[in-house]
Amino acid sequence: ARPKVGYFYTGRPHVNLIEQQIKSIRVEDIMSVPVVVTEEMSVYDAIVTMFLEDTGTIYVVSEGILVGVVSRKDFLKNAIGGIDINKVPVAMVMTRMPNITTIFPEESIWVAVNKIVEHEVDSLPVVEKLVDEGKEKLKVIGKISKSNMAKLLVELCRE
Amino acid sequence: ARPKVGYFYTGRPHVNLIEQQIKSIRVEDIMSVPVVVTEEMSVYDAIVTMFLEDTGTIYVVSEGILVGVVSRKDFLKNAIGGIDINKVPVAMVMTRMPNITTIFPEESIWVAVNKIVEHEVDSLPVVEKLVDEGKEKLKVIGKISKSNMAKLLVELCRE
Repeated sequence: ARPKVGYFYTGRPHVNLIEQQIKSIRVEDIMSVPVVVTEEMSVYDAIVTMFLEDTGTIYVVSEGILVGVVSRKDFLKNAIGGIDINKVPVAMVMTRMPNITTIFPEESIWVAVNKIVEHEVDSLPVVEKLVDEGKEKLKVIGKISKSNMAKLLVELCRE
Repeated sequence: ARPKVGYFYTGRPHVNLIEQQIKSIRVEDIMSVPVVVTEEMSVYDAIVTMFLEDTGTIYVVSEGILVGVVSRKDFLKNAIGGIDINKVPVAMVMTRMPNITTIFPEESIWVAVNKIVEHEVDSLPVVEKLVDEGKEKLKVIGKISKSNMAKLLVELCRE
């Protein structure tokens, strides 16, 4: 049982330095260049793009506006599912807005890593809000992934 | 040019506390349960196993000994490559030992995250050395991935 009075020295500094540092780094400081394709591209061509760019997630855009996300998992499911990947467009297999977790460039890495863990995704599209004909739209400007987090951890240890 | 004498206050503590903390956590403290299959399993069945277990990498074993690794990327490449995934065994598409980067359970997370970043892999098989008939073999006992790293970052901020 825990005593009700007295203090114990826990060995940890009072302030969480990792939290402080992670909250001070913004998404735009470490984000990557996203790989984007259009909705009309065939699933086959999108998979080839994925291999050429050596990425695990592709963002689908329409005039720069985010409309969907496709991952290796989505492609694999469809590739073994017997669809004609040369004919079916990527729009048919992607996860659509608004079912995509996004992040803004000025948000902190702390928010990003929490979203990645909570939503069990490999990456988040980094977006900017645009207002077009009175409607709010999201323009893709970057990508932040588990790989960025692993690299960040390496960097933080080196500093 | 940097002056040759005098000290500057950098705002950073002299000791890198993040590095200290990352180096004090062992792989076995945060590793996951690995998904393993045998070499004879068909590529199709291995892909189904991957989906059922919701994992991105599968380890291929022979009597508990690590012989190969297959990722979603390997499966996707082969699924669109026109092989008969129902007939071809997983042994035909896997990355084989000794071309696999592994880690021991008593090593630190610092070593693990550096290996993941340097070798550009999603996960590392956690292994134990066994000596069998005078030959050194590696038994798979866990898995450490970029997801474990993202979760660790969240945990370290909460503490």
